[in-house]
Amino acid sequence: MRETYDEMMAHCRETVALSQISGILSWDQETMMPKGAAHQRSEWMGALESTLHARETDPRIGDWLAALCGADLGQEAAANIRHIDHAHARAIRVPADLAVEIARVTSVSQGVWARARAEGDFAAFAPTLQRVLELHRQKAVALSDGSDPYDALLDAFEPGATAAGLTTLFAGLRAGLTDLLARIRDTGQGAPALDFQFDVDLQKGLADELAGAFGYDWSRGRLDAAVHPFSSGSGDDVRITTRFDPRDPFNCIYSTIHETGHATYEQNIRHAYSGTPLGRGVSMGVHESQSRIYENQLGRSRAFCGWLFQRMQAVFGDFGVHDPETFYRLVNAVKPGCIRTEADEVQYNLHILMRFDLERALIAGDLDVADLEGTWNERFLADFGTPVDGPANGVLQDVHWSVGLFGYFPTYTLGNIHAAGLFEAMNRAVPDLDAQLTRGDTAAARGWLGDNVHRFGGLFEPRDLIERATGQATSEGPLLAYLNAKFGALYGV
Amino acid sequence: MRETYDEMMAHCRETVALSQISGILSWDQETMMPKGAAHQRSEWMGALESTLHARETDPRIGDWLAALCGADLGQEAAANIRHIDHAHARAIRVPADLAVEIARVTSVSQGVWARARAEGDFAAFAPTLQRVLELHRQKAVALSDGSDPYDALLDAFEPGATAAGLTTLFAGLRAGLTDLLARIRDTGQGAPALDFQFDVDLQKGLADELAGAFGYDWSRGRLDAAVHPFSSGSGDDVRITTRFDPRDPFNCIYSTIHETGHATYEQNIRHAYSGTPLGRGVSMGVHESQSRIYENQLGRSRAFCGWLFQRMQAVFGDFGVHDPETFYRLVNAVKPGCIRTEADEVQYNLHILMRFDLERALIAGDLDVADLEGTWNERFLADFGTPVDGPANGVLQDVHWSVGLFGYFPTYTLGNIHAAGLFEAMNRAVPDLDAQLTRGDTAAARGWLGDNVHRFGGLFEPRDLIERATGQATSEGPLLAYLNAKFGALYGV
Repeated sequence: MRETYDEMMAHCRETVALSQISGILSWDQETMMPKGAAHQRSEWMGALESTLHARETDPRIGDWLAALCGADLGQEAAANIRHIDHAHARAIRVPADLAVEIARVTSVSQGVWARARAEGDFAAFAPTLQRVLELHRQKAVALSDGSDPYDALLDAFEPGATAAGLTTLFAGLRAGLTDLLARIRDTGQGAPALDFQFDVDLQKGLADELAGAFGYDWSRGRLDAAVHPFSSGSGDDVRITTRFDPRDPFNCIYSTIHETGHATYEQNIRHAYSGTPLGRGVSMGVHESQSRIYENQLGRSRAFCGWLFQRMQAVFGDFGVHDPETFYRLVNAVKPGCIRTEADEVQYNLHILMRFDLERALIAGDLDVADLEGTWNERFLADFGTPVDGPANGVLQDVHWSVGLFGYFPTYTLGNIHAAGLFEAMNRAVPDLDAQLTRGDTAAARGWLGDNVHRFGGLFEPRDLIERATGQATSEGPLLAYLNAKFGALYGV
Repeated sequence: MRETYDEMMAHCRETVALSQISGILSWDQETMMPKGAAHQRSEWMGALESTLHARETDPRIGDWLAALCGADLGQEAAANIRHIDHAHARAIRVPADLAVEIARVTSVSQGVWARARAEGDFAAFAPTLQRVLELHRQKAVALSDGSDPYDALLDAFEPGATAAGLTTLFAGLRAGLTDLLARIRDTGQGAPALDFQFDVDLQKGLADELAGAFGYDWSRGRLDAAVHPFSSGSGDDVRITTRFDPRDPFNCIYSTIHETGHATYEQNIRHAYSGTPLGRGVSMGVHESQSRIYENQLGRSRAFCGWLFQRMQAVFGDFGVHDPETFYRLVNAVKPGCIRTEADEVQYNLHILMRFDLERALIAGDLDVADLEGTWNERFLADFGTPVDGPANGVLQDVHWSVGLFGYFPTYTLGNIHAAGLFEAMNRAVPDLDAQLTRGDTAAARGWLGDNVHRFGGLFEPRDLIERATGQATSEGPLLAYLNAKFGALYGV
């Protein structure tokens, strides 16, 4: 048994290494790659994907798994077997010609989407989206084994989650959020504004300081600029990116804190898990919970904003804000806007909930691509109380659907829900958290997350991991309570 | 026939892509990788090497090659078949357990060498070198098919070259070089010296300008800093590195020009060859001829130095040299020194010739590792007229043998010999070359190299390529004539 397991794990470690290589190539593509290398890079990625697919569908994996059935090799081996079984089962269910066609179509569909968005022309994108959708519907059916096809797509990002479960969880959230947003809007309060040029080199220095303040291990990572910030990698090489806008330092600041949340999760996983399926964050939802709790519950708290305000004064001099209360309001302003990635804590999840409903309807065949733009605009008006100002800021704003990432969006809100649940538990464990954050000290908060989430990597199922850490079943309650308390106080509603 | 060929080429293109990925990972390792990621990176490289080895020994390649035997699919297909056959034949001849043992030993031997060099202790390195040598002797025997085992190692870097051929070529060169060096030494002329701090950011700007002046295509490459400068990649992603020493700007300047020579060779290969065995430089010797002709025949010429002197004055202001003649002498000073990579044009090849003789004796079993240091020191004194100042600057100075690169050194001198032959032909084709270089204009020189060397990639055998370009058989004559003329004039000997 142990020999079979070791043989399977040796194969698996090479697969993990090759998939990590794929990750660093994507990092390079977004940060370092010369423009003219794009086509060549797509050939590389194709060769690597083809190698990975061959490894994941290797018939020996089926034999090893069959031989290991019922084996008792301990908790960690059981978890590795579960991950390998999951990936293998998914890989062999998708017919090779469908996988090739999906790769072919999605290698160009993002370009079509980008041009359509630049021209604000949904009709130019619709036929491509239709094709991407059809292929992913086929993939979902191939994977689903008779259950809801959407669940099979969701399962790639959030193992164990179901559309039915999320629908219940999200229903109460939507009602609570639209109510809170309407109350805030009704106050008619405007937001403070910045009018200052924030030197990009100084922003870079502050970003380095913030990553360090949130526990980023520089000996096993680096920070670069990218158009769309991201965190990449696992084990001993976890790199983060941020972006710099001279007129809006919060773009850099909160992107950096957010990506540091993702990165420290990866960096703090038990080192013995490195190079195995246990050596990475367990799901997209849990990953997003770590980036969000850093960014929002900690980074946008009144206590931490007090410290950040002082650091910004020290770095940039007088930037036109003269007291911590105004600074806190600036950082947490609830403003009208159509763009998900620029949304505040109150509105962000409303963006996700509508995408979740729309993509479920698309996959189920209940919504035609031809009607998507109109349905998007109606839903937006209903939830946000303002109309969409054009398709580039509406149905065309996100890249996800263009590359077939159906089932990904809900993990963002799941992350926010988990973040709020974890934050409640963290506050019980660290009673003087605010006093620490006032000094820019995140050590206890990070330590609690490391002990209760990070170190376990992929050992537990995502939901089990969160329930162990929070001590309660996942619900929308903590998130709504947190938002109502925070923004109720900010807006007097 | 065509179908079989296309099938083989599809397999080959994926292999080329994966080997290019290995290249970018090495680039990343030397420029971007966090320090703590070294172990993980070695796992990645191992997984990629194992994948590449499996592809290169794939039995289907033997079947395809057998089926294509005698096929007439045109010149380019014939060249691709030749390259694939060459790589496949080499890969299948090395027993798998020997390949694994070489990989295992050389993954740690470089570290042993580095520590021994730091401590100036050859005895600490000798047992490791002994083991690396034994393994490569076994590999050479496995590859050699009864001929000189050294040739089988050389063949990895310079297909078609033989130890016997190089020995003849190098014999006359050594006599001519030791004679020229002795005459220069006898003049007793000292070298001018620099005493100025050259700002590193300004050096970076000048490096960018120089890469551009030598035709580097920035849309398909980038320039970064590295401890040991190198050029990496092929096709549309060819990256170069340089280094910065505030007290010695020529380190940066000539590293940049040298690496630009390697890089433009790769960038100028016919684009249709990209991703195939024809889409990269044909051998190490030919590659080095391109870097050396840029660096020395062009970059250290009196004409180009005149332009460079003006640019350096414009960039750095008064740096203590006030006329182009002194500048030219500074750039071409022949100074005592033990280090190959710091050697001038006169002494450089003497370093290589002694390494070539020593490593041939090691592989043949005519020289024991225990006697290597002593033999090195004797030979150095004989050729250079000065003693070695310690093993770190002597037998321990180069990394090559520690990682098993036997057969690599002679390609450096072959490159210098080719560079001189090509330079003679270039001067016949571009009669006003000096007038152009005086303006910093390398377009005609580059154009001639592009037409006669670069564009062909791997189409011809290395020696055939050079003989087509120079119009004559390869000999040491042009190099000796060039060096005697240049340094004879400089030193009045």
